[in-house]
Amino acid sequence: MKTYQEILESVKSIFDQECFVSAPQGLYEPIDYTLRLGGKRIRPVMLLAANQMFGGNEESVRYAAIGIETFHNFTLLHDDLMDKSPIRRGKPTVYRKWNENTAILSGDTMFAMAWRYMLKEPHSNLQEILNTFNETAIGVCEGQQYDMEFETRSDVTIPEYIEMIRLKTAVLLAGALKIGALYASAPADDTDKLYQFGIHLGLAFQLQDDLLDAYGDEKTFGKATGSDIRDNKKTYLYLKALETANDEQRAKLTAHFQSQPEDTTDKVNEVLAIYSTLNIRAQVEQAIDQEFELAKQFLAEIHVDQEQKKPLQTLTQMLLGREK
Amino acid sequence: MKTYQEILESVKSIFDQECFVSAPQGLYEPIDYTLRLGGKRIRPVMLLAANQMFGGNEESVRYAAIGIETFHNFTLLHDDLMDKSPIRRGKPTVYRKWNENTAILSGDTMFAMAWRYMLKEPHSNLQEILNTFNETAIGVCEGQQYDMEFETRSDVTIPEYIEMIRLKTAVLLAGALKIGALYASAPADDTDKLYQFGIHLGLAFQLQDDLLDAYGDEKTFGKATGSDIRDNKKTYLYLKALETANDEQRAKLTAHFQSQPEDTTDKVNEVLAIYSTLNIRAQVEQAIDQEFELAKQFLAEIHVDQEQKKPLQTLTQMLLGREK
Repeated sequence: MKTYQEILESVKSIFDQECFVSAPQGLYEPIDYTLRLGGKRIRPVMLLAANQMFGGNEESVRYAAIGIETFHNFTLLHDDLMDKSPIRRGKPTVYRKWNENTAILSGDTMFAMAWRYMLKEPHSNLQEILNTFNETAIGVCEGQQYDMEFETRSDVTIPEYIEMIRLKTAVLLAGALKIGALYASAPADDTDKLYQFGIHLGLAFQLQDDLLDAYGDEKTFGKATGSDIRDNKKTYLYLKALETANDEQRAKLTAHFQSQPEDTTDKVNEVLAIYSTLNIRAQVEQAIDQEFELAKQFLAEIHVDQEQKKPLQTLTQMLLGREK
Repeated sequence: MKTYQEILESVKSIFDQECFVSAPQGLYEPIDYTLRLGGKRIRPVMLLAANQMFGGNEESVRYAAIGIETFHNFTLLHDDLMDKSPIRRGKPTVYRKWNENTAILSGDTMFAMAWRYMLKEPHSNLQEILNTFNETAIGVCEGQQYDMEFETRSDVTIPEYIEMIRLKTAVLLAGALKIGALYASAPADDTDKLYQFGIHLGLAFQLQDDLLDAYGDEKTFGKATGSDIRDNKKTYLYLKALETANDEQRAKLTAHFQSQPEDTTDKVNEVLAIYSTLNIRAQVEQAIDQEFELAKQFLAEIHVDQEQKKPLQTLTQMLLGREK
């Protein structure tokens, strides 16, 4: 059995061996560029780990692993264009390095390439595997739509926010796990539990991302602390603060999240001060703990030896930075 | 057996019965709007006609018919954004009626919805059906890329142009036919011939579109005569003219296709005069005839009764406006 680290090495080697360039070059170069930017390769690792957990054969999920990562990178490519994000993993995003039309069309092609990979390996249950992949894709699109709509809405509730991050982040992690399990012909009951593990892990991961943006170390986190506050992003922290704030605090928060000052130091500090008064950090940590506990429970209930669960436990630890 | 007209009625009724709206509405309303704009529904009609030709069951291709049209409409939606076309079928395009991000994301979602439809109906050969669909999709993306690249290239050859329209237009017609045939479990040899019929029909159709733009009746054609000349589009007519022009004519043509005058009357007339001197119209008609003859040959070679081929013959006549 491979450890998490060995699975990650497998994934890296699978990507190193794969060629993404074809004619017309103008279409495929941005795709190759995007797929070679690296990243943590969380989704293909999850897919391989789930497959191994149920005794699958790594070769049989090689292409599904590339497919899920190609899909994920397609969504990043189009999201960066929609959000006008200039940088991804320290390099210019496709719409900046090339142009908007290239970003649109190379993205569309990546989605079709993801399908080519998903279709490569036969399986007696291929229709369910492909349905899982496609419903995941639709969920991610819906999540991105909610995310964009929330930018201009002032009445977003916490359940709506949770549903948005479930769709935008969690279903793809859960889908990757489920596809890996389906390829190993895992029992339906275990596959469902693994899916739920992925959902709650994804929610915990996204909530922690919100938390780290406000309180994380810039060096380890990789982006400037307080960027969500600067960009008026209505994260879980903000919504939780609104929920528990008194009228004065709510008015201040609302005003800050509509302002775009040149120098954002005061704005960030004042919002963080309100968060502090309202004990937001502890409340978010509690929400993360709850999701983490749910994820652990679902993983524990799956009918395979503890040993087989280790790579996913290591991954969880790596993602959430805590012992399991 | 249904006639072409009856198949078209079936397609219209399939679309009338289908609901494309779901939450979030902001994502699905533009999709519903696009799919309800109508159009000739050529691709689903071809899919149903091919299926019927080989004795298939119409109910079994109901969703594939919606899927192929949903995919086609997705490509139009993104193409209109990339080409900045304000109007489609007499109505504002999605990026104009909503905005660019909506056009990107609703388009992506339509692609996934097309997959949902393609995945709905089981078939013993589903993997080949889905591969056909996906390779079609990749071809269309590649064709659009070549089309965009040709805008800024001055050395496009006729074979390159033919390859571009093959990918951008013909493979989707051919793919729709092949999927219909595969669902009816048609013999591989006949399926291949039907595919080739679709390719040559598609090429003839696109070349005729180029011709009609220059010489067609504005009322029946639906767009202003000479729009390709005005927009500096390097169509088959232009490339054929360059090929046969003398130095003086070539210089004039090249200059005209780099100019963007306010009043384009003189430009259009002068280019048409050069076309006339070079006998371009007859040459393009000859190229269309060649493709049309090839298409007819492939259809003739398919091993089913002549009667079964009638709906596709009527469709051909409708598309190319000639007896078969």
